[in-house]
Amino acid sequence: MLTCCVRHLPRRLSTLKSPQCGLPLQHSGKHCSTEPGETPDPVRTLVRLCVDRHYISVGEGNAELFRRGVSCSYGPLGLELRRNLLEQWWHSVTRSSAHVFGINTVNISGDTAAGGPEQLRIVESESFQRIFEKQKVSKEQLVQMLQELLLRSPPVRKNLFKGALEQFVPSLELVNGKLPFGLAETGLCFQPSGGSANEVMQTSLVWFCSPRTSSQWLDHWSRQRLKWWRKFALSPSDFSSGDVPEEELEEVVSRGVRIMYNFPWGQEPLETLWIRGDTELLQAHKGARSKLQCREDRKSVPHVVSVTGNLDRGMMAFLSNSLQLQQRNVVTHKLSLVLKLHPTLAPVKVALDISRGATVELRQVCEGLQQELMEAEVSVWPGYLKTLPTSVEHLNAKYDEMGVLFTMMISENTLESGLLKVRSRDTTIKETMHISEIKNFLCRYISAADNI
Amino acid sequence: MLTCCVRHLPRRLSTLKSPQCGLPLQHSGKHCSTEPGETPDPVRTLVRLCVDRHYISVGEGNAELFRRGVSCSYGPLGLELRRNLLEQWWHSVTRSSAHVFGINTVNISGDTAAGGPEQLRIVESESFQRIFEKQKVSKEQLVQMLQELLLRSPPVRKNLFKGALEQFVPSLELVNGKLPFGLAETGLCFQPSGGSANEVMQTSLVWFCSPRTSSQWLDHWSRQRLKWWRKFALSPSDFSSGDVPEEELEEVVSRGVRIMYNFPWGQEPLETLWIRGDTELLQAHKGARSKLQCREDRKSVPHVVSVTGNLDRGMMAFLSNSLQLQQRNVVTHKLSLVLKLHPTLAPVKVALDISRGATVELRQVCEGLQQELMEAEVSVWPGYLKTLPTSVEHLNAKYDEMGVLFTMMISENTLESGLLKVRSRDTTIKETMHISEIKNFLCRYISAADNI
Repeated sequence: MLTCCVRHLPRRLSTLKSPQCGLPLQHSGKHCSTEPGETPDPVRTLVRLCVDRHYISVGEGNAELFRRGVSCSYGPLGLELRRNLLEQWWHSVTRSSAHVFGINTVNISGDTAAGGPEQLRIVESESFQRIFEKQKVSKEQLVQMLQELLLRSPPVRKNLFKGALEQFVPSLELVNGKLPFGLAETGLCFQPSGGSANEVMQTSLVWFCSPRTSSQWLDHWSRQRLKWWRKFALSPSDFSSGDVPEEELEEVVSRGVRIMYNFPWGQEPLETLWIRGDTELLQAHKGARSKLQCREDRKSVPHVVSVTGNLDRGMMAFLSNSLQLQQRNVVTHKLSLVLKLHPTLAPVKVALDISRGATVELRQVCEGLQQELMEAEVSVWPGYLKTLPTSVEHLNAKYDEMGVLFTMMISENTLESGLLKVRSRDTTIKETMHISEIKNFLCRYISAADNI
Repeated sequence: MLTCCVRHLPRRLSTLKSPQCGLPLQHSGKHCSTEPGETPDPVRTLVRLCVDRHYISVGEGNAELFRRGVSCSYGPLGLELRRNLLEQWWHSVTRSSAHVFGINTVNISGDTAAGGPEQLRIVESESFQRIFEKQKVSKEQLVQMLQELLLRSPPVRKNLFKGALEQFVPSLELVNGKLPFGLAETGLCFQPSGGSANEVMQTSLVWFCSPRTSSQWLDHWSRQRLKWWRKFALSPSDFSSGDVPEEELEEVVSRGVRIMYNFPWGQEPLETLWIRGDTELLQAHKGARSKLQCREDRKSVPHVVSVTGNLDRGMMAFLSNSLQLQQRNVVTHKLSLVLKLHPTLAPVKVALDISRGATVELRQVCEGLQQELMEAEVSVWPGYLKTLPTSVEHLNAKYDEMGVLFTMMISENTLESGLLKVRSRDTTIKETMHISEIKNFLCRYISAADNI
C-alpha cells in the first residue's frame, strides 16, 4: 500500500506526471499517497511503489542503492523487468547488423598487474590474517609481505571494455578480416564507493571500424541508442542525447556522446559513447600492429567506438518515466497511480482473477488459461490463488501499480458461455471476450506494441 | 582446424563416442584429429574444438578454467549456448509450478560481519596503501588498522542461498502466506582458488515447505532436475543422480542428492540438492519465528530444500556429451567430429551459404532469408559473407564441428525456381526445399525437439 506522504517538497521534484495538472489531488482510499491539495514527492512515491509491488526488496539500504542507479536486490517483478530490458538491449544490438557478436569475458582478471592503485581487488581474508599473526617480523617486513599479497590478489573489472579489446583478434577471423564489426556483452561490473563497492549491470558494445569512419559510426550508434530508449518510453522527451564537452574527455577520447534521462532530481547518464582511437587496442595486444590490421586496409589499426550503458539506472529511468497519476473516479476526483510500462517491458502481462462463485471450477479454468498463456511466453499473475476476497476497485488499483497490462475476471458466467471480462490498464475500459480468443488477442497486442 | 593429436593416452579418457566402435580411426583431411589406428584424447579434442569453433576464447589459462568447470571467457557460440541453457533452466524451474518466483540479490553484502575468515572480500587497494605508508604508528597499531579495514570491506557471495533466505518474508506475502513455494535465481558467485578466486554461474532454487514434506520435495526436485539434464543429452545415461553419503553431509543438512555427469576423467557434480531444515532461515531472520510462520501451520517454521547448480560445468557436460565421431565417407572410412547439441541448445540453428554464381543476387536472397529467420528468433550463421571460396566438404565439416543444425545452400537455381538444398547435421542427408517453406520447417523442427 502506498501510504507515504511528504509535506515539504522541493519544487523541482514535483514532476510526477498528472493527466490533469490543475486538478487538486484527493484521497484515493487505501492507495492514497497524498493529502488533499498536496503534490506527492515523486521519488519517494516511486521507491515506495517499487517496494510494495515487488520490484525491489524491502530495506533502507536497498532503496538507496536503487535510487543511486546501481544494482540492488530485486523482487520478482523487478527481476522480470530487468530480464526484459536486457533481452531488448541484446536484440537491438546483435540483430541490428550481421556483424555484432556476443561474447562473455571473466570478471576476475588473471592479469594481477592490471589497473592502478584505485583498483578493486578480491582478497581472501584468511591470507591477510596469517600475515597479521606473524610475530617475528619487523613492521617493514610486514608491510612488504602485505603489499605483495595485495598485488597478487586478482583485480575485478570496472567495465567490460578491456575484455572486448582482448577478443578482437579471434573475432577478426570470424568476419573474415573485414571491418566494421562489433562485440556485445552484458554483465556485472564493480565500482568503488566510499571505501565499499557497488555492482552495476553494464551493457557494452565495442565497435571496430576504419579510422576515417569512426565519427560517422559514433553518430550512427548515438541515433540508434536514443531511438531505442525512446521506443519504450511513455514520455520520450525525457530521454535526450548530447555531446560531451571537450574538457570532460579522457586523453584517448576524441569525441563523446551521452544519452541522458531527466530524473526528478536532474539529468543522469544512461549510456555513453566514445571514440577511443587505437591506443588501447594496441596496448591490449602489446603493440602487435600486424595482428590488428584488417584485410582491406593494411596500413592502419582499427579505431574503437565504445557504447557503455548502466542497465540498473536504465531500469529506474523506465520505472520513473512510466509512473502516472490517473483519475479513477470522475465524481469523487479520486486519483491513483498507474505504472504504464511499455507492453514489451511490463513484467506481468496478465492477471487472472475469479469473482465469487464455484471456486473449484473457476480455478480450473484459470489454471488451463494460465498454462496456455505461459506456453505462448505471456507472463501471468495468478491472482486467483489469493484466498481472501478483495474488492474489484482495490484489485484494479493494485494491478495498475504493478503495471499489469490486462486483468481478466473469470466468473460463473465464463463457465456457461466462455465469456470473460478483460480490463485494460491503459484505457481502464472493460471488454467482454471469449476465452478462446484471449491468447491470440494478447500475442497480437504485445507484438504490435513491439513493432511500433 | 583440429590438428591436435595425442600419442600417449590414458585408457579411461578414451570414451569419445564413435558410432562404429570397432572402426580404426583414419585421417579425415584438414579436420583430422588422430593418427591412423589411434584413439583421440577426448578432453584435448573437445577443448581444441571449443577454441577453434568460437565456444571459448584462445589461451591456456582460459582452457584450464573451462576444463575445471568455472566461468571462462566465452566466444560468440559459447555465449549463445550459455544463454540458451540459462533460459531453459529458468523456464523449467519457474514454469513448473505457479509458486516459483524469480529474484535477484546483490553480490556484495552490506553485512560486513557476515562470513568466516575464509570469506572473499572486495578491497580498494588504495585504502591499504594509505595505511602502509603511515610512518608514525607501531607494528601493532598498523595491524589493528589493517584488520579493521579488512573487516569493513564487503564480502562477495559464494552462493545464492543466503540472499534467497533473506527474501523469504516479503515473498510469503506474495503467496498469501501459503506453503510450499520457491525462489529462483541465477548469477555469478565467487570461489576461493589457491590464493586467487574463480567465478561460477550458479543456478539456485530455494524451496520452502512444511517440515513433514521436505523429504518428498527433495525426491520431487531430484527427479525433475535429472529429467531436465537428460532431456538435452545425446547420451542420457551419462547423467545420473545419487544420495550423498551421510558422512559428507554438513551439520544442518539431513539428506542430500547429487546430479552427476560422467566426464572422460570421472564423475563431477552438476547440481546438488539438500534438505537444510530451518536453522539457517531462523538465523537469517534473527530467530523471529512469528514472522516465518505460514498461515496453515502456526507452530512450525518452514523447512528449506536447496537446489544449487553450476551452469559452467553443465555447459561443458553438454558439449562433452554431444561430441561424436562420425563416418563421413563410406569408401575412404574418413571420420569427422560432429557436435550434436540438442536443437534447443545449439547456438546456431542455420548456416546460409552460396554456391558460385551471380553473387550479388544470391547475397540478397540470403539477407532476406536471414532477416525472416531472425525475426522468428532462429539464429543464423551468415556464411554467405565469407569471400573466400570453400569446398562443400570443408564447409560441412566446419558446421558439424560448430553444431549447426542445418546448412542451406543458395544457388543460381534458387533464383529461378526458389528451391534450395538443405543439409541436416544429424542425418547428413540433403533435401531440396522451397525457400518459402524454410521458416516454418525450422520453427516446427525446433519446437518438436523442445517438446519431446
